[in-house]
Amino acid sequence: MRYRLISWALPAIVLLAVVAGFAYVYWSKGGAGAGLYSRYWSPDPVQGYWDPANFYQSIETVEGVFEAALCIQCHEGITPGIVVDWRASRHARIDEPVTCDDCHGNNHQQLRLPTPDVCGNCHNKQHGEFRDEARYGFPSHVLAMERAVDAPHFADKPKAEVQSCVQCHSVATKCDSCHTRHLFDPAEARRPEACITCHSGPPHPDDESYFASAHGKIYLAEGKDWDWSKPLTKGNYKAPTCAYCHMDGGRHQVAQKSLWKFGLREINPHTSKNQVLRERWIELCRDCHEEKKAAQWLAELDQERKLAWRKLDKAEDMLKDLRSDELLQPAADERPDYPMGSLWPIERVGFFEGQASAFYNVSAIERDYFEMWYFDNLGAYKSAAHGNAAGVEDGHRKMAASLDRIEAKARELRHLSKDGRKVKLAPTLTELWMKGAYTDYNREHN
Amino acid sequence: MRYRLISWALPAIVLLAVVAGFAYVYWSKGGAGAGLYSRYWSPDPVQGYWDPANFYQSIETVEGVFEAALCIQCHEGITPGIVVDWRASRHARIDEPVTCDDCHGNNHQQLRLPTPDVCGNCHNKQHGEFRDEARYGFPSHVLAMERAVDAPHFADKPKAEVQSCVQCHSVATKCDSCHTRHLFDPAEARRPEACITCHSGPPHPDDESYFASAHGKIYLAEGKDWDWSKPLTKGNYKAPTCAYCHMDGGRHQVAQKSLWKFGLREINPHTSKNQVLRERWIELCRDCHEEKKAAQWLAELDQERKLAWRKLDKAEDMLKDLRSDELLQPAADERPDYPMGSLWPIERVGFFEGQASAFYNVSAIERDYFEMWYFDNLGAYKSAAHGNAAGVEDGHRKMAASLDRIEAKARELRHLSKDGRKVKLAPTLTELWMKGAYTDYNREHN
Amino acid sequence: MRYRLISWALPAIVLLAVVAGFAYVYWSKGGAGAGLYSRYWSPDPVQGYWDPANFYQSIETVEGVFEAALCIQCHEGITPGIVVDWRASRHARIDEPVTCDDCHGNNHQQLRLPTPDVCGNCHNKQHGEFRDEARYGFPSHVLAMERAVDAPHFADKPKAEVQSCVQCHSVATKCDSCHTRHLFDPAEARRPEACITCHSGPPHPDDESYFASAHGKIYLAEGKDWDWSKPLTKGNYKAPTCAYCHMDGGRHQVAQKSLWKFGLREINPHTSKNQVLRERWIELCRDCHEEKKAAQWLAELDQERKLAWRKLDKAEDMLKDLRSDELLQPAADERPDYPMGSLWPIERVGFFEGQASAFYNVSAIERDYFEMWYFDNLGAYKSAAHGNAAGVEDGHRKMAASLDRIEAKARELRHLSKDGRKVKLAPTLTELWMKGAYTDYNREHN
Repeated sequence: MRYRLISWALPAIVLLAVVAGFAYVYWSKGGAGAGLYSRYWSPDPVQGYWDPANFYQSIETVEGVFEAALCIQCHEGITPGIVVDWRASRHARIDEPVTCDDCHGNNHQQLRLPTPDVCGNCHNKQHGEFRDEARYGFPSHVLAMERAVDAPHFADKPKAEVQSCVQCHSVATKCDSCHTRHLFDPAEARRPEACITCHSGPPHPDDESYFASAHGKIYLAEGKDWDWSKPLTKGNYKAPTCAYCHMDGGRHQVAQKSLWKFGLREINPHTSKNQVLRERWIELCRDCHEEKKAAQWLAELDQERKLAWRKLDKAEDMLKDLRSDELLQPAADERPDYPMGSLWPIERVGFFEGQASAFYNVSAIERDYFEMWYFDNLGAYKSAAHGNAAGVEDGHRKMAASLDRIEAKARELRHLSKDGRKVKLAPTLTELWMKGAYTDYNREHN
Repeated sequence: MRYRLISWALPAIVLLAVVAGFAYVYWSKGGAGAGLYSRYWSPDPVQGYWDPANFYQSIETVEGVFEAALCIQCHEGITPGIVVDWRASRHARIDEPVTCDDCHGNNHQQLRLPTPDVCGNCHNKQHGEFRDEARYGFPSHVLAMERAVDAPHFADKPKAEVQSCVQCHSVATKCDSCHTRHLFDPAEARRPEACITCHSGPPHPDDESYFASAHGKIYLAEGKDWDWSKPLTKGNYKAPTCAYCHMDGGRHQVAQKSLWKFGLREINPHTSKNQVLRERWIELCRDCHEEKKAAQWLAELDQERKLAWRKLDKAEDMLKDLRSDELLQPAADERPDYPMGSLWPIERVGFFEGQASAFYNVSAIERDYFEMWYFDNLGAYKSAAHGNAAGVEDGHRKMAASLDRIEAKARELRHLSKDGRKVKLAPTLTELWMKGAYTDYNREHN
Repeated sequence: MRYRLISWALPAIVLLAVVAGFAYVYWSKGGAGAGLYSRYWSPDPVQGYWDPANFYQSIETVEGVFEAALCIQCHEGITPGIVVDWRASRHARIDEPVTCDDCHGNNHQQLRLPTPDVCGNCHNKQHGEFRDEARYGFPSHVLAMERAVDAPHFADKPKAEVQSCVQCHSVATKCDSCHTRHLFDPAEARRPEACITCHSGPPHPDDESYFASAHGKIYLAEGKDWDWSKPLTKGNYKAPTCAYCHMDGGRHQVAQKSLWKFGLREINPHTSKNQVLRERWIELCRDCHEEKKAAQWLAELDQERKLAWRKLDKAEDMLKDLRSDELLQPAADERPDYPMGSLWPIERVGFFEGQASAFYNVSAIERDYFEMWYFDNLGAYKSAAHGNAAGVEDGHRKMAASLDRIEAKARELRHLSKDGRKVKLAPTLTELWMKGAYTDYNREHN
């Protein structure tokens, strides 16, 4: 009898769940924001510049439909810099120039900011490569905005903080993150400065680690005299830059050599997939170095990563033990809900359980682990990958210090538990986020 | 009867206080140092280079009165670099050259280092603008040295530490902070490097936040090819630099657009004064950007600031509660006096109570708050103001961590108080500053 | 009777000890690694590039003996960049060119990577100066690799961490740390970028402190236009660079003006030895500055150092008191042995007791002191020496915070001791290094 019940109930439940899921996603996207939590936030006006397809609103103070010649005539007075740039660009100097209205439209009250699709109308090879990154998942440029706004904390944290995320994640939604307007010179995009506006600072010190490497120092000393009009192929540059390695040959696809996934995940270097990615790197390094050396260097990176994950695992084990013993304070059910929070709140420990959203609304020891993973670990990774020896030492020393801190806090939590002195350890921020003036402010702005 | 006493006593007391105040200031300035605490410190010899008007002493080993031709003849052998620079300068190439003696005098035993007043003899427009900053108070260039030496900690902290302050605050007392001698080329002063010798590092990462912004990256990639002889006006530069925005048009007045006062104070963006300052910014941003976008960007900054001050207020409230309950340890009356310390020592919590001097000689929790305010907060501000998204995230994350620390210490202080285990929490540094070898050293050198 | 025993026993014991010492060193160097602990570690394959004399193994996939013309013909296709560089080098353009085989040999299965000795065959002046540094001990370039691998932690810590050390310490074992292959242009090595690949980051922020100084900012703004083919002598450069001061006149000897020994040791500025070193600095500074100012500036540095050592001494005293009272936890005899650890384990506190290896395998409070000494202190020193005022403030503030932390932990250790609650304070890292998977990994790779 019981089995029969299951035999028809299970498919029915699955069917209902799938339907409910679709309905939920459809419903959730119906808000003023974008993405999965669109009902939970409204865009700041400036969002129109970061995600123009969804939010840009044209200027309404000037009326009229204008040809390019008129645009230029007027803007030479108002904003001469962009006209100077455009005149120097290939767009202006080809036989059939690409003019203002081609990208922005010509009705001044319905102007648009060009999205990748608009640029892709002409630059379809590059646009196709860019879109192809999606096959490799995230991290990738093409999914950057989507993943930013679909993280629960995007809807939950104060706008003033998450607004800083979308500035860089807008690399998915417009092309002028790398190609500054209105020159759009490939020579410019080949230089590391095109990348490091975003790829710098914790947790992704690509900037700092590259410039601290031998490669970076050569660029710093001599790059000003290199001929940047040359393609990113061997023999053209004394030292590699970001794009030389990650966009070799000018391919607009940065995800297809993503060997260690930004340092976010533990990788098994012995899979055949890994071997394919590895061969791509070695092929590239061979432009200047012995094949053997390139392979050895990657093995050093593997070794560094293995050591980093040993340390992270050790910390993660401590946290999972505390969770098993119900010693994390405040526990998940004592914390404020995420938006659309689950019915069964759980402490999410580790990358696969959703660490990426765990850097707030957690207990102190969980935040320590998050910081160890996200800042110390990624700093060590980027340094090892880019050849910044001091950064490897620095990252591993900080991981050791974090482990110390985590262990001390774990001991304290167990100690307090024995004394029956269970205390709420970090209510301040929780309160700050969820009660009183701060939240009113939050509500008002989200 | 009592009222009658007050009726004549009050004016008398006020009069006496004013007279005493004048006498006190007059007396205090009579020491070997400079400023309000001049009786409490003597200048290191090197101070002559930072504040030449007050302390420079000419070299006495060379005797004689020399014409410029002779200066040059001799110094071409001794210090040829400065002669090379001067020859390349406009000073040397104009019809009536400005020569060595014009600025330094011609008696080698009574040479002077030129002060702003000396430069102002010719460059009176710039000098006037520079002096005009005083109207806007501090932060400003013109008041920098005065405010540095008039802070109590200047006289109280070890010379070796405060000596590092005056290196930059000497921007008020000599012009070669920005215009390197002896070229004095405006083209040089227009570049960000002229500013960032001082405007870098915590608590004022102008350098780091600008260079991490899209503006800064464009400068880094292409600035070497720009024509720096052009004035700082629209159309001349692809991206703005420090001076382009803060000294637009070459105006030597950086204080008149000081919208958020360096991030030091909470500002109400709705006052009419604020609207005036805001309009000045928007007018400037319009050189390249839509007016609407500029206004939106400033609104984002307001939002970031509001969030920052919510966090600071939360911390300040905790400290003020502890002060009310007499739980700050050591209390103000258990601490060593500031020089000319008040008769009634008080714990000064928050900017308006004198936080600026509170980064030492305080209890541990007060220092945590000071660091949250002075480093985390200002880092977030500078990042938000200059367009460095990662820095905003970093600053706010650090403010959250500081809040955590402050709350944990506050809990501990209350806990210790209940147990009757009142302990002196941070005597080490106090002792280090005020007793034994360290203070002997201090006395000997102050 | 007893005295007679001593009279013959003492010389015998000394003789035995000396013989045993020699035997020990001879034995220890017989392993697969290099240096004093060679039996305790095996080189990673990549070590062949950092220490080629000891570990480089030629590529075996290509067979044959080749003349330079053939090398070039083939490598123009395989690795064109190095051929482009060589063609542009003086090696290629002189009457009797220095060709591939001169440095690498001509048997492709027995190629060598050139060591300093190989370069010294022609460049014997520079090579002689480089070797002469050994007279001054360490820090110096020539002893860098030796001191790195002879530190106990090199054999004891995970390979993945110490591997980052030898990347820079390879300055002793090959010349392309500073002269990038295959251009080897002195103009390149004169620039700061040649130095800062290694001289950056904690604990030696030479990079950061120089570039934050007035000297560094002038280089940043204008260095691109300087004529780097000129020798490093007065009048040729508007501002000094690393090499201008530390390798003045092109002398390959950086140790002979080492006034404060990298900030590692406390120095008495009143010795006659110190006066000799000081005169060398002043002589150099006089290229551009008044002699008096140079002397005053060095006195400022003395003052900063004196203050730093006051703070360090204070911390060291606290640690030594804890050691006397047997309160360091875990104690030295509870910690894992260093390789070839002493029979009588001791807690080594302070530089002269071997602090340099004390940044791991120690108790938490000892690590705090190590970090105070190695990072905070050296950061302050480098900043003071290079003229970065903000860095001096930053370093001293951090030293103060470290002192606070150390004092709090000392108090806690004494408190726990009174309660009879002696706990092992930091077993995590110890366990991580010495037990379980991590150590298996370590053993497997060392």
